[in-house]
Amino acid sequence: ADSWLPTLKTDTPEQGFQLAIKMSRMGVKTAQPNMDVLKKGRAEYSNDAEDLIQVSHVVATNFATVAAANNYWK
Amino acid sequence: ADSWLPTLKTDTPEQGFQLAIKMSRMGVKTAQPNMDVLKKGRAEYSNDAEDLIQVSHVVATNFATVAAANNYWK
Amino acid sequence: ADSWLPTLKTDTPEQGFQLAIKMSRMGVKTAQPNMDVLKKGRAEYSNDAEDLIQVSHVVATNFATVAAANNYWK
Amino acid sequence: ADSWLPTLKTDTPEQGFQLAIKMSRMGVKTAQPNMDVLKKGRAEYSNDAEDLIQVSHVVATNFATVAAANNYWK
Amino acid sequence: ADSWLPTLKTDTPEQGFQLAIKMSRMGVKTAQPNMDVLKKGRAEYSNDAEDLIQVSHVVATNFATVAAANNYWK
Amino acid sequence: ADSWLPTLKTDTPEQGFQLAIKMSRMGVKTAQPNMDVLKKGRAEYSNDAEDLIQVSHVVATNFATVAAANNYWK
Repeated sequence: ADSWLPTLKTDTPEQGFQLAIKMSRMGVKTAQPNMDVLKKGRAEYSNDAEDLIQVSHVVATNFATVAAANNYWK
Repeated sequence: ADSWLPTLKTDTPEQGFQLAIKMSRMGVKTAQPNMDVLKKGRAEYSNDAEDLIQVSHVVATNFATVAAANNYWK
Repeated sequence: ADSWLPTLKTDTPEQGFQLAIKMSRMGVKTAQPNMDVLKKGRAEYSNDAEDLIQVSHVVATNFATVAAANNYWK
Repeated sequence: ADSWLPTLKTDTPEQGFQLAIKMSRMGVKTAQPNMDVLKKGRAEYSNDAEDLIQVSHVVATNFATVAAANNYWK
Repeated sequence: ADSWLPTLKTDTPEQGFQLAIKMSRMGVKTAQPNMDVLKKGRAEYSNDAEDLIQVSHVVATNFATVAAANNYWK
Repeated sequence: ADSWLPTLKTDTPEQGFQLAIKMSRMGVKTAQPNMDVLKKGRAEYSNDAEDLIQVSHVVATNFATVAAANNYWK
């Protein structure tokens, strides 16, 4: 099957940010593959300011990795 | 459409800090695009000391990436 | 006995992500080896949006290490 | 107007630590510019052990950036 | 007396992970040397999914340092 | 007056760990200089497993900086 993460390489910082979001989501999906549970969870965190701040923190941590992998798109 | 993150390059550390804030906000907006929900969330976190400290932590994580991307504006 | 972590080297980013998940799990298992307790814990965190976000944050931190170890699979 | 963050350069590690504190505070102030709200928030977090530990964590994250920017004052 | 942390050097990644666990424990023990308190604390966190996830996050942070110190055991 | 942080240089990893603890404490003391408040806070966090884990996380973040500053005492 195709890999969901064939490379860390992206053409632009914005694509890199999208990849960081995907990695953050996969960090959850691999721990909890059940879509119903994930949908219920989404309803919770997506309406909770504190949770959304934590989501942004995970994206920031993954984006740091993607940015370094792309040499900051210099 | 124009990208909201065309580059990580900024002229000054302060602009880099502003970009880190923008990235932190986008980390929330991409998870929750609904403006009404975001406004309600802002009313919550912006009056909560603990949440504001977490916001600053996300900005610090993103600023570390932007600073490295700009070679610390040496 | 064979080591569960003989190397940080992986062929692809996706395998690197799997290794980061394994390292995150071992970070818990070494602190709490009792399988019954772990199973009960899994039932808790795997149905809690906030906990799943924290799990993703640990995976992101470990993935950063694995990605650097593999020179970002350039 | 003068920038509050003209440079990441400081002469000593202690000044670097002071800058990291200033950056951590600005991470809050940019999210919540209202001084009354900030004063109320200070009364809360400055008497809460958990919050003070989180404040120290944000300072540590910003200090890592400032220290790298100054090549660890070698 | 012998140092508990004479070096960051380890022969294998698994030993590096063990060292990261030891460093994480010492981060607690230096803050709270009283064994009775630590035992009571262990009973708490080792049965709490959220706490075990945080423990894994501290180990991941320390492991990143040990892995870099050993040049990722390349 | 003498600086509490004249340098990040230490002779050994253990001294580096001690410095990371001192930096973590100063991150709190600069935010809350009142000793009575700090003593009350200590009584709280030093008997709370979760808080002690967070303390260890701050020490780990500061130790990463000190270790890099000392080139991992290679």
